[in-house]
Amino acid sequence: MDLLKKKILEEGEVYEGNILKVDGFLNHRIDVPFMRQVGKEFHRLFKDEGINKILTIEASGIAIGALVAQEFACPLVFAKKTKTKNIAGDVYTSQVESFTHGTTYDIIVSKRFLDKNDKVLIVDDFLAIGNALNGLIDLVNASGASLAGCGVVIEKGFQHGGDKLREQGINVQSLAIVESMDHDTGMVYFRD
Amino acid sequence: MDLLKKKILEEGEVYEGNILKVDGFLNHRIDVPFMRQVGKEFHRLFKDEGINKILTIEASGIAIGALVAQEFACPLVFAKKTKTKNIAGDVYTSQVESFTHGTTYDIIVSKRFLDKNDKVLIVDDFLAIGNALNGLIDLVNASGASLAGCGVVIEKGFQHGGDKLREQGINVQSLAIVESMDHDTGMVYFRD
Repeated sequence: MDLLKKKILEEGEVYEGNILKVDGFLNHRIDVPFMRQVGKEFHRLFKDEGINKILTIEASGIAIGALVAQEFACPLVFAKKTKTKNIAGDVYTSQVESFTHGTTYDIIVSKRFLDKNDKVLIVDDFLAIGNALNGLIDLVNASGASLAGCGVVIEKGFQHGGDKLREQGINVQSLAIVESMDHDTGMVYFRD
Repeated sequence: MDLLKKKILEEGEVYEGNILKVDGFLNHRIDVPFMRQVGKEFHRLFKDEGINKILTIEASGIAIGALVAQEFACPLVFAKKTKTKNIAGDVYTSQVESFTHGTTYDIIVSKRFLDKNDKVLIVDDFLAIGNALNGLIDLVNASGASLAGCGVVIEKGFQHGGDKLREQGINVQSLAIVESMDHDTGMVYFRD
Protein backbone atom coordinates (compact mmCIF):
# COMPACT_ATOMS: atom_id res chain seq x y z
CA MET A 1 0.00 0.00 0.00
CA ASP A 2 1.90 3.02 -1.33
CA LEU A 3 0.14 5.52 0.93
CA LEU A 4 1.26 3.52 3.98
CA LYS A 5 4.87 3.25 2.81
CA LYS A 6 4.91 7.01 2.22
CA LYS A 7 3.53 7.56 5.71
CA ILE A 8 6.18 5.27 7.26
CA LEU A 9 8.94 7.12 5.41
CA GLU A 10 7.59 10.52 6.43
CA GLU A 11 6.57 9.84 10.03
CA GLY A 12 8.33 6.66 11.18
CA GLU A 13 11.40 6.88 13.39
CA VAL A 14 14.13 4.24 13.37
CA TYR A 15 15.86 3.37 16.64
CA GLU A 16 18.71 1.05 17.47
CA GLY A 17 17.67 -2.58 17.84
CA ASN A 18 15.51 -2.53 14.70
CA ILE A 19 12.78 -0.53 16.38
CA LEU A 20 10.41 1.31 14.07
CA LYS A 21 8.36 3.85 15.96
CA VAL A 22 5.09 4.76 14.27
CA ASP A 23 3.14 5.76 17.36
CA GLY A 24 2.11 9.00 15.69
CA PHE A 25 -0.41 7.22 13.46
CA LEU A 26 -0.62 3.52 14.35
CA ASN A 27 -0.47 2.69 18.03
CA HIS A 28 -0.68 5.59 20.48
CA ARG A 29 -2.03 8.48 18.46
CA ILE A 30 -4.13 6.83 15.76
CA ASP A 31 -4.68 8.69 12.52
CA VAL A 32 -8.22 7.39 12.13
CA PRO A 33 -9.01 8.94 8.71
CA PHE A 34 -5.82 7.32 7.38
CA MET A 35 -6.42 4.01 9.17
CA ARG A 36 -9.89 3.89 7.63
CA GLN A 37 -8.13 3.66 4.25
CA VAL A 38 -6.05 0.82 5.70
CA GLY A 39 -9.28 -0.93 6.72
CA LYS A 40 -10.66 -0.55 3.20
CA GLU A 41 -7.47 -2.04 1.75
CA PHE A 42 -7.80 -5.16 3.94
CA HIS A 43 -11.42 -5.45 2.80
CA ARG A 44 -10.30 -5.27 -0.83
CA LEU A 45 -7.76 -8.06 -0.21
CA PHE A 46 -10.05 -10.43 1.71
CA LYS A 47 -13.57 -9.52 0.55
CA ASP A 48 -14.18 -12.80 -1.30
CA GLU A 49 -13.29 -15.04 1.65
CA GLY A 50 -16.68 -15.14 3.36
CA ILE A 51 -15.29 -13.54 6.53
CA ASN A 52 -17.80 -13.05 9.36
CA LYS A 53 -15.47 -12.21 12.26
CA ILE A 54 -12.33 -10.14 12.82
CA LEU A 55 -9.95 -11.27 15.58
CA THR A 56 -7.14 -9.19 17.09
CA ILE A 57 -5.27 -8.74 20.37
CA GLU A 58 -5.35 -5.89 22.85
CA ALA A 59 -4.36 -3.13 22.88
CA SER A 60 -2.78 -1.87 19.67
CA GLY A 61 -4.74 -4.18 17.36
CA ILE A 62 -8.13 -2.92 18.46
CA ALA A 63 -8.37 0.34 16.51
CA ILE A 64 -7.40 -1.21 13.18
CA GLY A 65 -9.54 -4.26 14.05
CA ALA A 66 -12.62 -2.06 14.53
CA LEU A 67 -12.03 -0.21 11.26
CA VAL A 68 -11.58 -3.49 9.36
CA ALA A 69 -14.67 -5.02 10.98
CA GLN A 70 -16.62 -1.97 9.87
CA GLU A 71 -15.76 -2.68 6.22
CA PHE A 72 -16.91 -6.30 6.58
CA ALA A 73 -19.96 -5.20 8.64
CA CYS A 74 -19.08 -7.93 11.13
CA PRO A 75 -18.07 -8.14 14.81
CA LEU A 76 -14.57 -7.68 16.17
CA VAL A 77 -13.29 -9.96 18.94
CA PHE A 78 -10.12 -9.01 20.75
CA ALA A 79 -8.05 -11.51 22.71
CA LYS A 80 -7.20 -10.32 26.20
CA LYS A 81 -3.77 -10.53 27.75
CA THR A 82 -3.69 -11.94 31.23
CA LYS A 83 -1.05 -12.99 33.71
CA THR A 84 -3.46 -15.04 35.78
CA LYS A 85 -4.14 -18.56 34.57
CA ASN A 86 -7.82 -18.88 33.81
CA ILE A 87 -8.71 -22.31 35.05
CA ALA A 88 -12.36 -22.09 34.06
CA GLY A 89 -13.23 -24.00 30.93
CA ASP A 90 -15.02 -21.10 29.32
CA VAL A 91 -12.10 -19.59 27.40
CA TYR A 92 -9.68 -20.59 24.70
CA THR A 93 -6.14 -19.81 25.77
CA SER A 94 -2.65 -19.68 24.30
CA GLN A 95 0.74 -18.40 25.40
CA VAL A 96 2.59 -15.54 23.76
CA GLU A 97 6.21 -14.64 24.36
CA SER A 98 6.89 -10.92 24.16
CA PHE A 99 10.12 -10.29 22.30
CA THR A 100 10.09 -6.62 23.34
CA HIS A 101 9.49 -7.17 27.02
CA GLY A 102 11.13 -10.57 27.53
CA THR A 103 8.01 -11.94 29.23
CA THR A 104 5.38 -14.56 28.51
CA TYR A 105 1.68 -13.95 28.92
CA ASP A 106 -1.53 -15.85 28.31
CA ILE A 107 -4.09 -14.66 25.81
CA ILE A 108 -7.73 -15.64 26.14
CA VAL A 109 -10.94 -15.46 24.15
CA SER A 110 -14.30 -16.44 25.56
CA LYS A 111 -15.64 -19.60 23.95
CA ARG A 112 -18.93 -17.76 23.44
CA PHE A 113 -17.29 -15.48 20.87
CA LEU A 114 -15.44 -17.88 18.57
CA ASP A 115 -16.81 -21.15 17.19
CA LYS A 116 -16.82 -23.56 14.27
CA ASN A 117 -19.25 -21.43 12.28
CA ASP A 118 -16.79 -18.55 12.09
CA LYS A 119 -14.61 -17.62 9.16
CA VAL A 120 -11.98 -15.47 10.78
CA LEU A 121 -9.64 -12.74 9.58
CA ILE A 122 -6.89 -12.02 12.10
CA VAL A 123 -5.53 -8.46 12.02
CA ASP A 124 -2.71 -6.79 13.89
CA ASP A 125 -0.60 -3.66 13.68
CA PHE A 126 2.82 -5.36 13.54
CA LEU A 127 4.27 -8.74 12.58
CA ALA A 128 7.87 -9.51 13.53
CA ILE A 129 8.72 -12.99 14.81
CA GLY A 130 5.03 -13.83 14.68
CA ASN A 131 4.43 -14.76 18.31
CA ALA A 132 1.19 -12.81 18.69
CA LEU A 133 -0.22 -14.07 15.38
CA ASN A 134 0.72 -17.66 16.27
CA GLY A 135 -1.12 -17.30 19.56
CA LEU A 136 -4.21 -15.95 17.81
CA ILE A 137 -4.05 -18.77 15.24
CA ASP A 138 -3.95 -21.25 18.17
CA LEU A 139 -7.20 -19.75 19.47
CA VAL A 140 -8.86 -20.02 16.06
CA ASN A 141 -7.77 -23.64 15.71
CA ALA A 142 -8.92 -24.53 19.22
CA SER A 143 -12.36 -23.11 18.48
CA GLY A 144 -12.83 -25.09 15.30
CA ALA A 145 -13.31 -21.87 13.29
CA SER A 146 -11.79 -21.47 9.82
CA LEU A 147 -8.91 -19.09 9.33
CA ALA A 148 -9.31 -16.97 6.19
CA GLY A 149 -5.97 -15.25 6.66
CA CYS A 150 -3.98 -12.61 8.50
CA GLY A 151 -3.91 -8.91 7.70
CA VAL A 152 -0.94 -7.00 9.05
CA VAL A 153 -0.26 -3.29 8.76
CA ILE A 154 3.54 -3.41 9.03
CA GLU A 155 5.62 -6.59 8.72
CA LYS A 156 9.28 -6.64 9.71
CA GLY A 157 10.38 -8.92 6.89
CA PHE A 158 13.86 -9.41 8.29
CA GLN A 159 12.44 -11.20 11.36
CA HIS A 160 10.78 -13.79 9.09
CA GLY A 161 7.64 -14.49 11.14
CA GLY A 162 5.53 -13.75 8.07
CA ASP A 163 7.60 -16.01 5.84
CA LYS A 164 7.16 -18.94 8.23
CA LEU A 165 3.39 -18.46 8.33
CA ARG A 166 3.22 -18.29 4.51
CA GLU A 167 5.26 -21.51 4.30
CA GLN A 168 2.50 -23.14 6.37
CA GLY A 169 0.02 -22.08 3.70
CA ILE A 170 -1.51 -19.22 5.67
CA ASN A 171 -2.64 -16.23 3.61
CA VAL A 172 -0.68 -13.39 5.26
CA GLN A 173 -1.20 -9.99 3.66
CA SER A 174 1.00 -7.21 4.96
CA LEU A 175 0.42 -3.71 3.64
CA ALA A 176 4.10 -2.79 4.07
CA ILE A 177 7.00 -5.21 4.50
CA VAL A 178 10.13 -3.60 5.90
CA GLU A 179 13.20 -5.43 4.59
CA SER A 180 15.78 -3.40 6.46
CA MET A 181 16.26 -0.22 8.47
CA ASP A 182 19.26 1.96 9.19
CA HIS A 183 19.13 3.84 12.46
CA ASP A 184 22.12 6.01 11.49
CA THR A 185 20.39 7.48 8.46
CA GLY A 186 16.81 6.81 9.63
CA MET A 187 16.10 5.10 6.29
CA VAL A 188 13.55 2.31 5.90
CA TYR A 189 13.76 -0.09 2.94
CA PHE A 190 10.74 -2.07 1.80
CA ARG A 191 10.56 -5.53 0.25
CA ASP A 192 10.08 -5.60 -3.58
CA MET B 1 -30.12 6.23 23.14
CA ASP B 2 -33.09 3.87 22.88
CA LEU B 3 -31.31 1.35 20.66
CA LEU B 4 -28.56 1.00 23.27
CA LYS B 5 -31.00 0.56 26.17
CA LYS B 6 -32.81 -2.13 24.16
CA LYS B 7 -29.48 -3.86 23.50
CA ILE B 8 -28.55 -3.74 27.21
CA LEU B 9 -31.92 -5.23 28.17
CA GLU B 10 -31.66 -7.96 25.56
CA GLU B 11 -27.99 -8.91 25.86
CA GLY B 12 -26.69 -7.59 29.17
CA GLU B 13 -26.23 -9.93 32.12
CA VAL B 14 -26.51 -8.78 35.71
CA TYR B 15 -24.22 -10.34 38.31
CA GLU B 16 -23.97 -9.93 42.05
CA GLY B 17 -21.94 -6.88 43.11
CA ASN B 18 -23.64 -4.57 40.61
CA ILE B 19 -21.76 -6.06 37.68
CA LEU B 20 -23.32 -5.52 34.26
CA LYS B 21 -21.73 -7.78 31.69
CA VAL B 22 -22.04 -6.52 28.13
CA ASP B 23 -18.98 -8.18 26.68
CA GLY B 24 -21.05 -9.55 23.82
CA PHE B 25 -21.22 -6.14 22.13
CA LEU B 26 -19.11 -3.60 24.02
CA ASN B 27 -15.82 -4.86 25.38
CA HIS B 28 -14.69 -8.30 24.28
CA ARG B 29 -16.79 -9.11 21.24
CA ILE B 30 -17.55 -5.71 19.73
CA ASP B 31 -20.66 -5.35 17.61
CA VAL B 32 -19.00 -2.91 15.23
CA PRO B 33 -22.05 -2.12 13.03
CA PHE B 34 -23.98 -1.27 16.22
CA MET B 35 -21.08 0.64 17.80
CA ARG B 36 -20.84 2.70 14.62
CA GLN B 37 -24.32 3.99 15.46
CA VAL B 38 -23.04 4.79 18.95
CA GLY B 39 -20.19 6.76 17.36
CA LYS B 40 -22.67 8.72 15.24
CA GLU B 41 -24.72 9.53 18.34
CA PHE B 42 -21.68 11.00 20.12
CA HIS B 43 -20.98 13.06 17.01
CA ARG B 44 -24.55 14.38 17.05
CA LEU B 45 -24.17 15.37 20.72
CA PHE B 46 -20.76 17.06 20.43
CA LYS B 47 -20.53 18.16 16.79
CA ASP B 48 -20.67 21.90 17.54
CA GLU B 49 -17.81 21.86 20.07
CA GLY B 50 -14.90 22.25 17.66
CA ILE B 51 -13.41 18.91 18.70
CA ASN B 52 -10.14 17.95 16.98
CA LYS B 53 -9.02 15.02 19.15
CA ILE B 54 -10.62 12.01 20.85
CA LEU B 55 -8.95 10.70 24.01
CA THR B 56 -9.63 7.33 25.63
CA ILE B 57 -7.85 4.67 27.69
CA GLU B 58 -6.73 1.19 26.74
CA ALA B 59 -8.07 -1.35 26.14
CA SER B 60 -11.87 -1.29 26.14
CA GLY B 61 -12.16 2.39 25.16
CA ILE B 62 -10.21 2.01 21.93
CA ALA B 63 -12.86 0.50 19.65
CA ILE B 64 -15.52 3.07 20.51
CA GLY B 65 -12.83 5.77 20.45
CA ALA B 66 -11.85 4.86 16.89
CA LEU B 67 -15.46 4.85 15.72
CA VAL B 68 -16.13 8.25 17.34
CA ALA B 69 -12.90 9.70 15.88
CA GLN B 70 -14.03 8.53 12.47
CA GLU B 71 -17.21 10.64 12.75
CA PHE B 72 -15.18 13.71 13.70
CA ALA B 73 -12.50 12.86 11.05
CA CYS B 74 -9.88 13.46 13.72
CA PRO B 75 -7.17 11.41 15.47
CA LEU B 76 -7.70 9.14 18.47
CA VAL B 77 -5.17 9.11 21.30
CA PHE B 78 -5.36 6.36 23.87
CA ALA B 79 -3.74 6.61 27.29
CA LYS B 80 -1.60 3.62 28.16
CA LYS B 81 -1.72 1.83 31.48
CA THR B 82 1.64 1.15 33.03
CA LYS B 83 2.94 -0.18 36.30
CA THR B 84 6.42 1.23 35.78
CA LYS B 85 6.91 4.86 36.72
CA ASN B 86 7.96 6.77 33.65
CA ILE B 87 10.56 9.20 34.93
CA ALA B 88 11.26 10.78 31.53
CA GLY B 89 9.66 14.16 31.06
CA ASP B 90 8.08 13.28 27.76
CA VAL B 91 4.70 12.02 29.03
CA TYR B 92 1.76 13.36 30.96
CA THR B 93 0.84 10.99 33.74
CA SER B 94 -1.92 10.41 36.27
CA GLN B 95 -2.90 7.68 38.70
CA VAL B 96 -6.06 5.60 38.42
CA GLU B 97 -7.44 3.33 41.11
CA SER B 98 -9.16 0.26 39.75
CA PHE B 99 -12.32 -0.45 41.71
CA THR B 100 -12.70 -3.86 40.04
CA HIS B 101 -9.17 -5.08 40.64
CA GLY B 102 -8.29 -3.23 43.85
CA THR B 103 -5.06 -1.90 42.34
CA THR B 104 -3.64 1.45 41.31
CA TYR B 105 -1.90 2.04 38.00
CA ASP B 106 -0.37 4.97 36.15
CA ILE B 107 -1.76 6.17 32.86
CA ILE B 108 0.41 8.04 30.40
CA VAL B 109 0.07 10.01 27.20
CA SER B 110 3.03 11.24 25.19
CA LYS B 111 3.36 15.03 25.31
CA ARG B 112 3.70 14.95 21.52
CA PHE B 113 0.08 13.88 21.18
CA LEU B 114 -1.80 16.30 23.43
CA ASP B 115 -1.25 20.05 23.64
CA LYS B 116 -2.84 23.44 24.21
CA ASN B 117 -4.19 23.62 20.65
CA ASP B 118 -6.40 20.57 21.21
CA LYS B 119 -10.13 20.57 21.90
CA VAL B 120 -10.64 17.13 23.38
CA LEU B 121 -13.58 14.78 23.69
CA ILE B 122 -12.92 12.00 26.18
CA VAL B 123 -14.79 8.75 25.48
CA ASP B 124 -15.02 5.51 27.40
CA ASP B 125 -17.18 2.41 27.52
CA PHE B 126 -18.19 2.64 31.21
CA LEU B 127 -18.45 5.30 33.91
CA ALA B 128 -18.94 4.18 37.52
CA ILE B 129 -17.02 6.00 40.27
CA GLY B 130 -15.26 7.99 37.59
CA ASN B 131 -11.65 7.10 38.35
CA ALA B 132 -10.61 6.48 34.76
CA LEU B 133 -12.34 9.65 33.51
CA ASN B 134 -10.78 11.71 36.28
CA GLY B 135 -7.35 10.38 35.30
CA LEU B 136 -7.95 11.28 31.66
CA ILE B 137 -9.18 14.76 32.66
CA ASP B 138 -5.92 15.20 34.64
CA LEU B 139 -3.96 14.48 31.45
CA VAL B 140 -6.00 17.00 29.46
CA ASN B 141 -5.51 19.66 32.13
CA ALA B 142 -1.77 18.97 32.38
CA SER B 143 -1.41 19.41 28.63
CA GLY B 144 -3.20 22.75 28.52
CA ALA B 145 -5.75 21.39 26.06
CA SER B 146 -9.44 22.30 26.36
CA LEU B 147 -11.92 19.67 27.44
CA ALA B 148 -15.10 19.72 25.35
CA GLY B 149 -16.74 16.98 27.37
CA CYS B 150 -16.97 13.29 28.10
CA GLY B 151 -18.94 10.74 26.10
CA VAL B 152 -19.77 7.51 27.91
CA VAL B 153 -21.58 4.50 26.53
CA ILE B 154 -22.95 3.12 29.82
CA GLU B 155 -23.00 5.07 33.09
CA LYS B 156 -23.71 3.34 36.38
CA GLY B 157 -25.74 6.20 37.83
CA PHE B 158 -25.91 4.66 41.30
CA GLN B 159 -22.14 5.02 41.71
CA HIS B 160 -22.42 8.79 41.12
CA GLY B 161 -19.11 9.40 39.31
CA GLY B 162 -21.01 11.09 36.49
CA ASP B 163 -23.00 13.29 38.89
CA LYS B 164 -19.80 14.55 40.51
CA LEU B 165 -18.26 15.43 37.16
CA ARG B 166 -21.43 17.28 36.09
CA GLU B 167 -21.39 19.22 39.38
CA GLN B 168 -17.90 20.43 38.36
CA GLY B 169 -19.43 21.80 35.15
CA ILE B 170 -18.12 19.07 32.86
CA ASN B 171 -20.38 18.14 29.95
CA VAL B 172 -20.84 14.41 30.53
CA GLN B 173 -23.13 12.70 28.01
CA SER B 174 -23.94 9.07 28.73
CA LEU B 175 -26.00 7.17 26.18
CA ALA B 176 -27.54 4.95 28.86
CA ILE B 177 -27.59 5.64 32.60
CA VAL B 178 -28.33 2.58 34.71
CA GLU B 179 -30.09 3.62 37.90
CA SER B 180 -30.34 0.17 39.45
CA MET B 181 -29.97 -3.50 38.68
CA ASP B 182 -31.40 -6.64 40.21
CA HIS B 183 -29.27 -9.74 39.88
CA ASP B 184 -32.11 -12.00 41.05
CA THR B 185 -34.39 -11.02 38.19
CA GLY B 186 -31.66 -9.83 35.81
CA MET B 187 -33.54 -6.56 35.37
CA VAL B 188 -31.83 -3.27 34.57
CA TYR B 189 -33.56 0.05 35.32
CA PHE B 190 -32.53 3.23 33.54
CA ARG B 191 -32.55 6.83 34.82
CA ASP B 192 -35.41 9.11 33.61
